Amino acid sequence: MQKKAVILFSGGLDSTTCVAIAKSKNYECYALSFDYGQKHNVELQLAKRMAELMGVKEHKIFSVGLNDLGGSALTDHKIDVEDYKGDDQIPATYVPARNTVFLSIALGWAEVLGASDIFIGANHFDYSGYPDCRPAYFNAFEMLANLATKAGVENTSRYQIHAPLLHMHKHEIIRLGLSLGVDYSMTLSCYRANAKGHACGKCDSCVYRKKGFQTAGVVDPTPYF
Amino acid sequence: MQKKAVILFSGGLDSTTCVAIAKSKNYECYALSFDYGQKHNVELQLAKRMAELMGVKEHKIFSVGLNDLGGSALTDHKIDVEDYKGDDQIPATYVPARNTVFLSIALGWAEVLGASDIFIGANHFDYSGYPDCRPAYFNAFEMLANLATKAGVENTSRYQIHAPLLHMHKHEIIRLGLSLGVDYSMTLSCYRANAKGHACGKCDSCVYRKKGFQTAGVVDPTPYF
Repeated sequence: MQKKAVILFSGGLDSTTCVAIAKSKNYECYALSFDYGQKHNVELQLAKRMAELMGVKEHKIFSVGLNDLGGSALTDHKIDVEDYKGDDQIPATYVPARNTVFLSIALGWAEVLGASDIFIGANHFDYSGYPDCRPAYFNAFEMLANLATKAGVENTSRYQIHAPLLHMHKHEIIRLGLSLGVDYSMTLSCYRANAKGHACGKCDSCVYRKKGFQTAGVVDPTPYF
Repeated sequence: MQKKAVILFSGGLDSTTCVAIAKSKNYECYALSFDYGQKHNVELQLAKRMAELMGVKEHKIFSVGLNDLGGSALTDHKIDVEDYKGDDQIPATYVPARNTVFLSIALGWAEVLGASDIFIGANHFDYSGYPDCRPAYFNAFEMLANLATKAGVENTSRYQIHAPLLHMHKHEIIRLGLSLGVDYSMTLSCYRANAKGHACGKCDSCVYRKKGFQTAGVVDPTPYF
């Protein structure tokens, strides 16, 4: 029987590449997107289209209103998303406990599906310094997952958190994705995307992406506004 | 300044006692309830009333539709909540990854509030064998919390998961709560509560509670239907 994987899927460059990787490893893919009160929730429409294009088995958009907690430029209309600064600070786009909430829900879905593998497109090089994108964090979550669940305790599943992009640079991710047939023109990474899904080109996420295409020597297919 | 605590709060016997304990330790209490698609969501009305009675600083009811994942008798109308059996199996009322999802959201709120302390009324003796109620699980979550967050990484918070009832029997919890002035007639523990908030007396949760009052030698004030 084909193994199942739950894949955190925003429809951005990294998570779309992650789906392509899981597919190339012959997983049956269950893509999980979150309507978490993000200002750029246009990404959900693009994620839906991309999930269809990638031929995932199921695409679920799960609602969890992290905007109700506030504290992030991505969810709180009183805090602006700033242009990329490139300093060492964790930027205002950090969403408290976001990956922990997302992975927990992915874990619940995985247990119901009988999947043992969860993929996340986190990246530890060309990223914004978010604490929940570090290797030690994913190791800790994996340990937790196996303690937290009936399937983990009864040993019917041994949960694994796969972060295949963790130690790759953005241009390497792009090259890998292209080799797997990903159409990046259909992916959206921008934190300030407009209603058409066009990107600002200036936020952290856009800048890392843009540099990635430049370094990869590939034409950037992103529609900017 | 008074220390803040986020307290997972269903309005049941255990979590209400937990609020009383946190108050007795002079925490400013932020009670967090979840509308997670539970069939017995009448508990939220009672939780609201109880939160007011206990004088918490803020009571938040957070929506996270775990029923969208299915797989539990508490959220899936195709699976019945059974009477208490008392065997060693993890019962059908287990909700995949529930405490991990709840604690993650509590962690996010704690970080936004500047709270370092999270209370959960989990109990490891008179309980249904849920894997996410065991000491090792809470230790793992605490480790994760400090890796996951900006406040943890920057050392502005050192997150602690408090499970003060973990090693107590139900009758001990009841005696402690009574000594702290808890009115248990206003708490609801039943998985099959009716629209009036009356309890079935036969599900796991009711049976543990009932026995607790008996062993404590205290009149059970629960309204049963």
